[in-house]
Amino acid sequence: MSEWRADPVTGHWTIVADDLPLARRDFVLDGISRPLDLPCPLCEGREATAGHEIAAVRDGTAADGPGWRLRVVPNRVPALRVEAASAGTQDGLLAHRPGLGAHEVIIESPRHDASWYTMTADELTLVLQAWRGRMADLRRDARLRAAVAFKNHGAEAGARLVHAHSQVMATPLVPPHLAHEVDAARRHHTATGRCLLCDLVTQERASGLRVVADSGTHVTLAPYASRTPFEAWIVPMHHGARFDETPEGELGALAAALRLLLDRMAAELEAPAFNAVLHSAPFDEPGDGAYHWHLEVLPRVLRPGGFDLGAGVPVNPVSPEKAARVLRVPA
Amino acid sequence: MSEWRADPVTGHWTIVADDLPLARRDFVLDGISRPLDLPCPLCEGREATAGHEIAAVRDGTAADGPGWRLRVVPNRVPALRVEAASAGTQDGLLAHRPGLGAHEVIIESPRHDASWYTMTADELTLVLQAWRGRMADLRRDARLRAAVAFKNHGAEAGARLVHAHSQVMATPLVPPHLAHEVDAARRHHTATGRCLLCDLVTQERASGLRVVADSGTHVTLAPYASRTPFEAWIVPMHHGARFDETPEGELGALAAALRLLLDRMAAELEAPAFNAVLHSAPFDEPGDGAYHWHLEVLPRVLRPGGFDLGAGVPVNPVSPEKAARVLRVPA
Repeated sequence: MSEWRADPVTGHWTIVADDLPLARRDFVLDGISRPLDLPCPLCEGREATAGHEIAAVRDGTAADGPGWRLRVVPNRVPALRVEAASAGTQDGLLAHRPGLGAHEVIIESPRHDASWYTMTADELTLVLQAWRGRMADLRRDARLRAAVAFKNHGAEAGARLVHAHSQVMATPLVPPHLAHEVDAARRHHTATGRCLLCDLVTQERASGLRVVADSGTHVTLAPYASRTPFEAWIVPMHHGARFDETPEGELGALAAALRLLLDRMAAELEAPAFNAVLHSAPFDEPGDGAYHWHLEVLPRVLRPGGFDLGAGVPVNPVSPEKAARVLRVPA
Repeated sequence: MSEWRADPVTGHWTIVADDLPLARRDFVLDGISRPLDLPCPLCEGREATAGHEIAAVRDGTAADGPGWRLRVVPNRVPALRVEAASAGTQDGLLAHRPGLGAHEVIIESPRHDASWYTMTADELTLVLQAWRGRMADLRRDARLRAAVAFKNHGAEAGARLVHAHSQVMATPLVPPHLAHEVDAARRHHTATGRCLLCDLVTQERASGLRVVADSGTHVTLAPYASRTPFEAWIVPMHHGARFDETPEGELGALAAALRLLLDRMAAELEAPAFNAVLHSAPFDEPGDGAYHWHLEVLPRVLRPGGFDLGAGVPVNPVSPEKAARVLRVPA
């Protein structure tokens, strides 16, 4: 029998309908990549096309030339721009603000065929360090209120380029998903004096039902009200509001937890398209506050229908308990 | 330059980034249908497989046999069930309710190859009448608080069967998108004494920028903060909170407006996959209240990326002004 489930962290309700007789053909396990009929703008040797680097990992080579392990550049086709004005306008009922914000691209490898499914934990660590560095830097811009780092892997997940890359967007308003999480975290903190996600991790580790992996430093959970089959969150055990204040030395352990999850997705789900999204406290949240950063991984194995898009209620045919059993390393 | 836009009806913000240099290949214009390797369960002659009919349009033929123009049956694989219990439980931080609700299927034609793109306005009228009838009936169940009728056309839009069908789901809680619209409508009504959507239609007709069609009885708008390229709302000019209280005679005009929009989507967008979602007031809203029912049509021509899914901010590369110019009947 299906059930309604509320996520304590985000506040959303999901219908978990685990008894739907879905077949393998009902899942999207292809659509991973798409050939580009142009030279890849992110490959080594095309630095001028990709753009001036904001940051890079290099062994002594000169900026904006070859010989790098990772580069951060402004998005060539930005959805938001730091040069935009701040002041909004109101035309009758219609509120408008200029497209202020930052939109950066992390080119994660000089190799065209690299992928999170094949990169080493050390290579993933470089990516996480770049996310951390950019989020710390963008937080210094007083016009911005939050930053989100995210990865689109595969055309099915919205990626337009095959070459391994991720993005950081920083915004002059707090995105709704972050805002809802902050609200829930504050309510719990006010009521109990404790962190909601810390309490949730304690409860989930006690039952074990939805624990995918537990490294001692990070817990990977299939969240109770998972919006999509095989959704997984990697949560640090050590409480912290901001990803950009995480000690650099802890990023290797996060990369290892991510590497393990990706290996399990490759082994059990045929390496599906996915989005990964880093949730860190909005800039004006106190650093010691109730919020607890985490990394959400959303496989794109089912296309949402009209009830999800039009009413805001996901219908998830794979329970998180089953997802955790599939993704867990067999004993 | 891109801009942030707030939708006055739903409260959501969208980044409209109309200057992205997208090519035709960046849009999903296929993925419409998928062959089923089983006999279609919705075709005429397979009534026993489809299920006992809750309602039907027949010219004197017997229930549950052939000879029908439209049938409504319980979903064979329901996400929600009217037989489920109401009482929820709380396990520590985790809130759970049984999967109570209704989940019905409207089989829109006995013909396997019918489609909203090819059905006549009269055939679409039958569908809308069925939606109306089912929503009126489900509202009598005191355990339920809202009903949403919706259509998934094409695999890209979440449809699993090719045979023309739509669905009605009725729920024991108000889905979040409806709840947000009710909140915005109430605030506007409290502040002004007027209906928000009536005022919006007045403003949009005055500017004309985002008007796709205007039949005198229905206005088709590309909403100001469209979440997705070519999103369109069909709004009745005559104020009404509940679709199920619309006079039957007005449904033909709604079907004609829908027919015109579909024709334009077929002509200009290659008949893409889409979702259509009917928003009607929650059951406990006063019938003469601030809410105004409408039909939202969401073409699935772009796959959302991680910032939309993970942060809740759509990035729409086609401005609604451009979308309206494309979808409008040329002068």
